Amino acid sequence: MRTKYDKQLTALHDELIAMGALCEAAIQYAVQALRTRDTELAKRTMQGDKEIDQKERIIESACLKLLLEQQPVARDLREVSAALKMVTDLERIGDLAEDIADVSLFLCERPDYTAPEQIDFMVEAATKMVHDSIDAFVANDLAKAHSVMEYDDVVDRLFNEVRTVLVKRIHASMEDAEQAMDIMMVAKYLERIGDHAVNISEWVEFSITGTYKNSRVL
Amino acid sequence: MRTKYDKQLTALHDELIAMGALCEAAIQYAVQALRTRDTELAKRTMQGDKEIDQKERIIESACLKLLLEQQPVARDLREVSAALKMVTDLERIGDLAEDIADVSLFLCERPDYTAPEQIDFMVEAATKMVHDSIDAFVANDLAKAHSVMEYDDVVDRLFNEVRTVLVKRIHASMEDAEQAMDIMMVAKYLERIGDHAVNISEWVEFSITGTYKNSRVL
Repeated sequence: MRTKYDKQLTALHDELIAMGALCEAAIQYAVQALRTRDTELAKRTMQGDKEIDQKERIIESACLKLLLEQQPVARDLREVSAALKMVTDLERIGDLAEDIADVSLFLCERPDYTAPEQIDFMVEAATKMVHDSIDAFVANDLAKAHSVMEYDDVVDRLFNEVRTVLVKRIHASMEDAEQAMDIMMVAKYLERIGDHAVNISEWVEFSITGTYKNSRVL
Repeated sequence: MRTKYDKQLTALHDELIAMGALCEAAIQYAVQALRTRDTELAKRTMQGDKEIDQKERIIESACLKLLLEQQPVARDLREVSAALKMVTDLERIGDLAEDIADVSLFLCERPDYTAPEQIDFMVEAATKMVHDSIDAFVANDLAKAHSVMEYDDVVDRLFNEVRTVLVKRIHASMEDAEQAMDIMMVAKYLERIGDHAVNISEWVEFSITGTYKNSRVL
């Protein structure tokens, strides 16, 4: 029984790693499409979200089957329920990458309007957070989960910087107000991706310790 | 055994209804705080999010205990896992109400800057969607779940209208760019609340039919 559980759990880990990699790639592609105004890449990124949604369903089915067949208790039950919860955050990350790609289509008519450099830093930070949160789950690495939670401040600070830059730009040339609004949305989407990575890390903490957001749950 | 399961399920329904009501109230209060620049109300709304977070943990614990103790199968397993998933969306709705209250604090220095009327329509629509999605779950009402999914178009359309109004306003007076950005965020938060209500409705559909986003899961 234990062996079968371990085998199913390893398969679950592999699926989560694969789904995390798809999400990271989607963020990168979406922002590349924005930067180069590559409408084809934007459309491919948006279609790629279907694959992420499919992974979500595979992982959810796997979790529910694990719960049903193995009826795990204690640490094992926490691990499977954590996976069941975090997959939702991953799926939302995929949706947010799709949202960024969607904005890049709007901006195609204005290839001269470039995003502030902080957007690139946000992409770097958000992608790292997504990667590390999944990594923390698979490796049972509580310290790494905590580092993701702390790193969220970096993304929040960058978000505020983007806002300041964009308001200054509008003051310099109000004709670009629409483009500024769109880039502001991209910054918001990236900030949300960071939030979802934090959520995943909170589930990692729950899985390892049984404590969720400072409360004992199970 | 069945009786105990039913009893636990009824308690779970009651908690979900209570949490849904807290979320609806939080949205209303947050936007009222924005409209009247009531910093006290904004702060109370933000503190109220702790209560919503607490409800999330209570419901999650209840779901996990139900899975563990009753080891439900088929329709019952779907119902409990749906509750476990939708509670995350409710918690995010609470977070978004807190985000709106937070923006209202920023806008306090500019009480003359009023939000477009579409924001009020968005509040009405989003609150209705949250209410109906929980209602659909408790009453096993598939038609109501579908109507929430369809209603999302209304919120999306209003969001685009707000964007158009704000860009026009900036063109008329670029001095208000910062306030326009803030109201744009409020519109985005309300649109996201609608998305979360749609997510809840998708879990209701899964719970009733076993189909999640057009795929057979369990």
